[in-house]
Amino acid sequence: MLVEILTIGDELCRGEIVDTNSSWLAAELWDLDVTCGWMTSCRDVAEDMRAALRQACARAELVVCSGGLGPTEDDLTVDVVAGLAGAVAEVHEPSRARMEARFAAVKAPRATNWLRQVRVPAGARVHDNPAGLAPGFEVELDGVPVICLPGPPRELKAMFDASVRARVVELRERRGAPERIARRIYRVFGRGESQVAAALDGLTEGVAGASLHFQVSFPETLVKVVVRDRDGAAAAARLAELDRAVRERLGRWLYGDGAAKLPEVVVGALAARGLTLAAAESCTGGLIGALVTSVPGSSRVFLGGAVCYADGEKVRQLGVRPETLASAGAVSEETVREMAAGMRERSGADLAVAVSGIAGPGGGSEDKPVGAVWLALAGQGGVTARHILWPGARDQVRTLAAWWALSMVLSEVAGADAGAGGAS
Amino acid sequence: MLVEILTIGDELCRGEIVDTNSSWLAAELWDLDVTCGWMTSCRDVAEDMRAALRQACARAELVVCSGGLGPTEDDLTVDVVAGLAGAVAEVHEPSRARMEARFAAVKAPRATNWLRQVRVPAGARVHDNPAGLAPGFEVELDGVPVICLPGPPRELKAMFDASVRARVVELRERRGAPERIARRIYRVFGRGESQVAAALDGLTEGVAGASLHFQVSFPETLVKVVVRDRDGAAAAARLAELDRAVRERLGRWLYGDGAAKLPEVVVGALAARGLTLAAAESCTGGLIGALVTSVPGSSRVFLGGAVCYADGEKVRQLGVRPETLASAGAVSEETVREMAAGMRERSGADLAVAVSGIAGPGGGSEDKPVGAVWLALAGQGGVTARHILWPGARDQVRTLAAWWALSMVLSEVAGADAGAGGAS
Repeated sequence: MLVEILTIGDELCRGEIVDTNSSWLAAELWDLDVTCGWMTSCRDVAEDMRAALRQACARAELVVCSGGLGPTEDDLTVDVVAGLAGAVAEVHEPSRARMEARFAAVKAPRATNWLRQVRVPAGARVHDNPAGLAPGFEVELDGVPVICLPGPPRELKAMFDASVRARVVELRERRGAPERIARRIYRVFGRGESQVAAALDGLTEGVAGASLHFQVSFPETLVKVVVRDRDGAAAAARLAELDRAVRERLGRWLYGDGAAKLPEVVVGALAARGLTLAAAESCTGGLIGALVTSVPGSSRVFLGGAVCYADGEKVRQLGVRPETLASAGAVSEETVREMAAGMRERSGADLAVAVSGIAGPGGGSEDKPVGAVWLALAGQGGVTARHILWPGARDQVRTLAAWWALSMVLSEVAGADAGAGGAS
Repeated sequence: MLVEILTIGDELCRGEIVDTNSSWLAAELWDLDVTCGWMTSCRDVAEDMRAALRQACARAELVVCSGGLGPTEDDLTVDVVAGLAGAVAEVHEPSRARMEARFAAVKAPRATNWLRQVRVPAGARVHDNPAGLAPGFEVELDGVPVICLPGPPRELKAMFDASVRARVVELRERRGAPERIARRIYRVFGRGESQVAAALDGLTEGVAGASLHFQVSFPETLVKVVVRDRDGAAAAARLAELDRAVRERLGRWLYGDGAAKLPEVVVGALAARGLTLAAAESCTGGLIGALVTSVPGSSRVFLGGAVCYADGEKVRQLGVRPETLASAGAVSEETVREMAAGMRERSGADLAVAVSGIAGPGGGSEDKPVGAVWLALAGQGGVTARHILWPGARDQVRTLAAWWALSMVLSEVAGADAGAGGAS
């Protein structure tokens, strides 16, 4: 089953935003054995949208659109699709009611154009929007199903998860018995794509219907193992075999599988063992705390932290000795060890992690170049430290440092279970 | 002049990588007064590539392709384009020589297919590759110039900078004097897209060649005002008129224009006045600090902060009174005022901002629902507080709370200049 993805918006064609919806949808559809043949973007121009929709219906068996469902005059998708379907655009009452409730809840006045975004073509199958106000919908054009989703990625993803994925499977099944797909995503941190690929070289050789896909999602690398077979149980059995091999080959760099990213895995590991965490941050400036507390329920394990951007704050908040800062500098093993130890002692947390580094673009020296970061973890067994050097852009250095901090926490917690010695 | 951007590759259509080339090219072209009308991606399938190229030449005045110039068998661009142009694919001798030199320099053995990627259609205009080995090239198909660039973004950008940009200008000029574009981007925080649109309703009415574009980039809304005219000075003059009207209508919700987002504007405003900032964060968990320190040079103004997720940390780090927490609760005006005052006093910062709220999804009550956030700002003139209620997803509540905190800082700093009373 071949699909065309159509994304609509002047802001796309002016290069103001990168279209991440198309690749996200393409990957999701690929997982459903639905191949994306074309991805097209056009402007908020009715004539261009009509031409793009007609063409998509002429060459694809399913069309998935995103964008143009908002409340403003340049949001034309509902009208254009309704026009092609020979239907009128009408207000979808449940969505209107949701929006009314929303206005009441936030006590906001109604904009004059508020009803625009709760319209759908008459007779369309409606897809509810769990993350926003504009409903999605599906119509048939020239016998081809066209599913229209909102442009904001979080709304598009929520709607896909809530109802569109199941609908695509239904449409696919209707076209005849396809292959079943067994698949698993593995999450790797601490090794780059080429190292991961080398570690898995030849993995699927001789395994019928098996394939391996890599995706860099900085700072981690995702590995997707897929097995196809007309017999779903046979595919699952071969995937289970491969699963053992993947885990053996990736070892400690594999930190999880499925949708849970490192912060969620760390919070889960701490919660499972009843441990608490605190963070002392310099170059990450609060990013570790922000990542940990992005996980719902993190209040069970995260006490808080100190953001000590200025040296004086390292002394005041964490008790780092001024002599240490003077002799070794703020970015040093000595300072970061004192930061972690001070944080743990003062907060009473079971574990405290500390980071100090040169995020750039300025501030580097030959001795301590941009990308040089010291990390320390204080636990019951003492303080361990590690150094990383990754000369990249400021946001990359900071993200990488925060992830390494979380990775040290996970190693410590997992290591404690296994009776091992903590982070390397 | 309308252009179509065509990106080619199975990895795009499987969603394994996000196509950033299209938006980068579109933005570069837009700056050259060349409007991208369509962005198309297709697989490494010769028939699809031919159809996409034919269609692009039928509707656009210039086609820019990327991808499919590599050495492997699925790199088909040279052969497909040569076929459509009625030319043979032939080795480009200067590129061959460069590649030979490269093999010699790195002492690498030649891959068997190494000559594939130094071929171009016979008679094509060649664009050298300053960052790689595969040359780019340009041919005419049906009278439309088609420029083919390599897929790796680094190589594509280097080639565009080295020769393609100048060539596009040349092609544009050859089509006669085009319209000039005057434009400005305005950044609005604190009002949603529909409210912003309502405030600017009718703005461009009667202004020749003027248009208005909105873009939600949560949590802010971008407004782009564009004026087109064959006379660049006339376009600029009308834009200047509109500029005054935009500023008047948006008032204090307009926090800046151009590329600088709120954290950068806040850091700049603080730095310009020699003021320092500290942050006391509960529900944002470090996000305010992470946003502020994402700005290079923020160490001039940001001392640090306290992430006080647990109540005990609010007492220990900020001196919040246990009685206050017991009587008013952690999410209350009283607590957040004490957090801000304590942070300011202990850190010695000129300004301290504090946040406490219910980020969800759990933890809400009728009294204090998910999305309820209290903020306070402590400055020389005392402490001001404000309450927001925005029942959204956890990451949205947190992002919104962090932006409101920054917005309060900006109002205070800008208000101090104007002799006004600070944040509302």
